[in-house]
Amino acid sequence: MKLVETLRIALLVASLAVVSAARAQPAGPLPSWNDGTARARIVAFVQAVTDKAGKDHVAPAERIAVFDNDGTLWSEQPAYFQLLFAIDRVKALAPKHPEWKTSQPFKAALEGDMKALAASGEKGLIELVMATHAGNTPEEFQKVVRDWLATARHPKFKRPYTELVFQPMLELLDYLRANGFKTYIVSGGGIEFVRAWSQQVYGIPPEQVIGSSIRTKYEVHKGVPTLVRLPEINFIDDKAGKPVGIQQHIGRRPIAAFGNSDGDFQMLEWVTAGPGPRLGLIVHHDDAGREFAYDRKSHIGRLDRGLDEGPKRGWTIASMKNDWKAVYPAAR
Amino acid sequence: MKLVETLRIALLVASLAVVSAARAQPAGPLPSWNDGTARARIVAFVQAVTDKAGKDHVAPAERIAVFDNDGTLWSEQPAYFQLLFAIDRVKALAPKHPEWKTSQPFKAALEGDMKALAASGEKGLIELVMATHAGNTPEEFQKVVRDWLATARHPKFKRPYTELVFQPMLELLDYLRANGFKTYIVSGGGIEFVRAWSQQVYGIPPEQVIGSSIRTKYEVHKGVPTLVRLPEINFIDDKAGKPVGIQQHIGRRPIAAFGNSDGDFQMLEWVTAGPGPRLGLIVHHDDAGREFAYDRKSHIGRLDRGLDEGPKRGWTIASMKNDWKAVYPAAR
Repeated sequence: MKLVETLRIALLVASLAVVSAARAQPAGPLPSWNDGTARARIVAFVQAVTDKAGKDHVAPAERIAVFDNDGTLWSEQPAYFQLLFAIDRVKALAPKHPEWKTSQPFKAALEGDMKALAASGEKGLIELVMATHAGNTPEEFQKVVRDWLATARHPKFKRPYTELVFQPMLELLDYLRANGFKTYIVSGGGIEFVRAWSQQVYGIPPEQVIGSSIRTKYEVHKGVPTLVRLPEINFIDDKAGKPVGIQQHIGRRPIAAFGNSDGDFQMLEWVTAGPGPRLGLIVHHDDAGREFAYDRKSHIGRLDRGLDEGPKRGWTIASMKNDWKAVYPAAR
Repeated sequence: MKLVETLRIALLVASLAVVSAARAQPAGPLPSWNDGTARARIVAFVQAVTDKAGKDHVAPAERIAVFDNDGTLWSEQPAYFQLLFAIDRVKALAPKHPEWKTSQPFKAALEGDMKALAASGEKGLIELVMATHAGNTPEEFQKVVRDWLATARHPKFKRPYTELVFQPMLELLDYLRANGFKTYIVSGGGIEFVRAWSQQVYGIPPEQVIGSSIRTKYEVHKGVPTLVRLPEINFIDDKAGKPVGIQQHIGRRPIAAFGNSDGDFQMLEWVTAGPGPRLGLIVHHDDAGREFAYDRKSHIGRLDRGLDEGPKRGWTIASMKNDWKAVYPAAR
């Protein structure tokens, strides 16, 4: 019995030492967030749901947080990065498609004519996506995405796109996970596009990525079991589609949601309407100096209704300019 | 430094004590599996993928195992339990639908005429599912399922359906999870039907359930954000649909798959065609005494191609009669 007693005490002391070491972390959580309402609300929410003795305690299994990607976890200007990928992909595939030189939206993509591309409308954009995203397997497609990310550079910042992720949001992901949360991406972008790099960049595994998708078909091709991506829309994970995608993949209502545009409105609405403690937060792009400034009138990431109704609904509007000490991680 | 040294040694001793306690477990893993090829292959596979020094080591994140549900984790005779649920649901809803007394497939369901029900074909069954599964929210539907499970009894065994789960498979789920696996259900049955009880019965959370589904729509109904289940098929998670559902939800290829019928063939084919160590196992219902005996000619859970091709493909055929010491958990 004596050995057991000694071990128990030693373990207790050791575990206390670990706890105080964690608490002694000099910067505290979210070091790139300025002291202010946004940071305070996040910390208060996390403390409330993890406090076992508190009335707002939430069991770890129910600690699910959902994040929009474009404009919430990484930048989305001057155009969604996936669209820039599709344009580069048209250029790469053009030698096999001489007809693209004279037909829209491909001509516009090849000439980098964003105005003509926009004029091709949703129909044109879908055509562009189908021509550049289908016809291969998910694994092949992901490799194409990763190869592109390895060399492509953002037109303004001249950095890899995967470095144009928001440092405060990376810290938020880590902070939530350290407090027992499961973090999901719920993106209007393509599910396999995001999966290609979400583990490496955000620490989010493929099974925790929800997104728009094209149809996939299973077939045995020359004796090899294969999944083939088809040029047909399967699901659009945007606006009212986001709660639907969440239910389909997660099967329960998250308790925290993070977005930046009116495309995330229904997701925040759905998440924050549940019982118990809830956190809804919108990243407001108001920092023309360090990133971009846009909201009500932007064609990309328009934020209008959320700015008006969000505060009344108890959502936090995080100002990129005022709430964030840094926007991007330091250049490597 | 002395305290630290003491603690380190104490922790080391303590952790060794924990390890040997685990190893000393008298029955070893899978106590309800007889010693035989099936059990030996499962154990060898798990040891191989968890052996850090071995050539077949698989990182924990890639240790994903997928399980069919009907006939693999619980029984499926004399009819899929979800169909028996739908029939009981027709009876419960009948007072509001006087027209069902005279129209098929509802008349057959009300009269318990399984022959006439079968004669209504796939179209009739779909009609039955839509009338009994749609028009509510996922939460409401799950409550209906749980309420039914609380009182419904199996016609042959007179036990709750949730007790007609296979004890050896429950042990297998636990064994895999204890070895770092993430366990998923990939069911031809309804995703929300299974989610209603998968955590409680199998320890599988809703986000790890993949299944067939009807469409869901998000709307704000009288000021309340709501997901409504629509009477339209969204996805059929059966046969070639299973690898598609796996890719959609998990986004990577599992390394182990468990099924019992030709509806699982493509899932096992897809999983076991990947590189590195793979495990494919089929539960063969050959135990008329303790459960049911059926395979090539059964209308439910037909197993024909899998019996012929499975062994050639390296899949293990587990005989319920010979490989399992027990079929169901002891009655409570």
